[in-house]
Amino acid sequence: MQEDVMASLPANCQATLTIDLPAIVDNYLTVRQLAGGTDAAAMVKADAYGMGLSEVAPALFHEAGCRNFFVANLAEAVALRSYTPDACIYVLNGLFPGHEDYFSAHDLRPVINSLEQLELWKKSCASLPCALHFDTGINRLGFSPDETVQLLRQPNSTGQVNIALVMSHLACADDEQNSLNLRQLDAFRKITSHFPGIPASLANSGGILLGPEYHFDMVRPGLLLFGGNPSASQPLPAGIRPAFTITGRILQVRELREGMSVGYGSGWTAPHRSRIAIVNIGYADGYLQVFNNVGHLYLQGSEVPVIGRVSMDMLAIDISDAPFAAVSEGDEIELLGQHITLEKASELSNLSQYEILTGVRERYQRVYIPVK
Amino acid sequence: MQEDVMASLPANCQATLTIDLPAIVDNYLTVRQLAGGTDAAAMVKADAYGMGLSEVAPALFHEAGCRNFFVANLAEAVALRSYTPDACIYVLNGLFPGHEDYFSAHDLRPVINSLEQLELWKKSCASLPCALHFDTGINRLGFSPDETVQLLRQPNSTGQVNIALVMSHLACADDEQNSLNLRQLDAFRKITSHFPGIPASLANSGGILLGPEYHFDMVRPGLLLFGGNPSASQPLPAGIRPAFTITGRILQVRELREGMSVGYGSGWTAPHRSRIAIVNIGYADGYLQVFNNVGHLYLQGSEVPVIGRVSMDMLAIDISDAPFAAVSEGDEIELLGQHITLEKASELSNLSQYEILTGVRERYQRVYIPVK
Repeated sequence: MQEDVMASLPANCQATLTIDLPAIVDNYLTVRQLAGGTDAAAMVKADAYGMGLSEVAPALFHEAGCRNFFVANLAEAVALRSYTPDACIYVLNGLFPGHEDYFSAHDLRPVINSLEQLELWKKSCASLPCALHFDTGINRLGFSPDETVQLLRQPNSTGQVNIALVMSHLACADDEQNSLNLRQLDAFRKITSHFPGIPASLANSGGILLGPEYHFDMVRPGLLLFGGNPSASQPLPAGIRPAFTITGRILQVRELREGMSVGYGSGWTAPHRSRIAIVNIGYADGYLQVFNNVGHLYLQGSEVPVIGRVSMDMLAIDISDAPFAAVSEGDEIELLGQHITLEKASELSNLSQYEILTGVRERYQRVYIPVK
Repeated sequence: MQEDVMASLPANCQATLTIDLPAIVDNYLTVRQLAGGTDAAAMVKADAYGMGLSEVAPALFHEAGCRNFFVANLAEAVALRSYTPDACIYVLNGLFPGHEDYFSAHDLRPVINSLEQLELWKKSCASLPCALHFDTGINRLGFSPDETVQLLRQPNSTGQVNIALVMSHLACADDEQNSLNLRQLDAFRKITSHFPGIPASLANSGGILLGPEYHFDMVRPGLLLFGGNPSASQPLPAGIRPAFTITGRILQVRELREGMSVGYGSGWTAPHRSRIAIVNIGYADGYLQVFNNVGHLYLQGSEVPVIGRVSMDMLAIDISDAPFAAVSEGDEIELLGQHITLEKASELSNLSQYEILTGVRERYQRVYIPVK
């Protein structure tokens, strides 16, 4: 595909995803304040939660002073290395046989999740920095409780290894009342006491809001950087703001007689004479059918309801009400952003904010607002 | 990002999406047989339903003899033009003021959805081919019933326009009992009678299975090309097969004591001593949390249940049962493909097959099986 030809197309021929890099930088700085000045790494796995690793990571490094980044796998890490030559890059999936040379060649740090992985690193790269990941209750990745006991009883087992970070991960940080949080905190404290002088990290975005005792030496925000709210009970912290906007266009305005139905499966029927509009965003763009008949978009100062089933490439809205009298073809409409926040869209759809965010697809024209 | 560096990474450092181009070609040829030899266009909007326009479209053009393609918007059409210089390319979203020159420059055919769009085309490009889209009951895009009456009463209104195709779209083709199908068929027949000698098209994948009276001169398969079943009541037609496989890897195997819980929100608790495995695919890859505790994957000859909440980058499965005794870290596992078909995944999750297909994300390593 010729990039120059694509770049010359009129902006209004597709929907637009605008990513606000200054907001991401500001959110990062706000998180550091929330964490009382503790160091903050940035979670940028899954292409920076869908927002674009190649743009988000350099902005965080150069404009926000972020020095530590976490990605899921080796491929993401190698890509990130090319965007941020001087960052510390941790790979959450850990180390697998035959991958050691890639870690050393690209100066990457495995998050060591098991005794086997520890042995592997020890054999080939003991002097290079890595993280040790202890599972304190999520039972996903990391040293199991049995392995943890084994490891701590034999301090020599890590003697030659260059441990740059000791970490664990919270299972229920979104729910501040959940007793597992304190149990994990307690278990992690005991573990860190065996690693004096080595930085420790426990809190994801949700954990940051649980309070200072969860902050240790480094927090690991993800969702907060992009304006989502990791807490099920607390409001979005002051200073955190939406970091992206999805703007669609109205393809067609239609007048319906009472009883006419709209979309696949005739998912909505006009209760009276109605005026509807078709918007150029559908589930192939990440706006799934859980929004059928319940989604809200933002149009000319008011929220407007999604009607019927979301199609692959478009959706319908009811613009019968007075605020929308002037709406016409070509008009812009907000799907997600300042007014339809991740929190609001999550409430309407029962999708998690994380799923909505990482579900943003490739079809949008992307615009990055630069820092400064 | 350096493409050569990324290409040199070990295949097992991430999950893999294998796209079977021969299957897509065979499915296309099967669709033509199903449609009794009627011409078949290919729906390749949304990056060929997520499978990759740059690979899928040329395979259909060169290996299957497909000559007509439909995309959603101008940007998709211009990209497709660069992959298939000689194809007929229709743009479903229609024509907007200021876009006429792009259509003529790239030899694209707008699907004219309104009288305004018709006037626009007439003024600038009347001699160039376009499609007329009549809305016969989905109330989405296309000439409304009132506009249709107006247009048909004044045959001169299209006199100078080069109409290459007259089309409409079915709202309920997945449900063969739905009376709207026959009403739409009847309305479309009346419309086509006003355009003698001009090819007509009504049927999407679902419509193809409704029977020969729905086929007209051209059918427009999408889901069937990729192995999905557009019918809610009929089995997948013989000869249609899955066109892609998603293969994950086991990151870690864990032994759990009774009562230990797994994942975010402690979404699954071991009812007895259990053996679980963590797989390197999560909702950021398109495997959403609607699969929490209900998804099935395919591992070493048996289906295996997803347990707990799907995470952003991984999920957990229960491998306590005998068939999985030999499972170990690094093993491959099928998320979607021959065994976990789109139909099956849709039944388990209540996501539509279309959403699961177009939800396949970018993070996979992509492998295309070539034709021949």
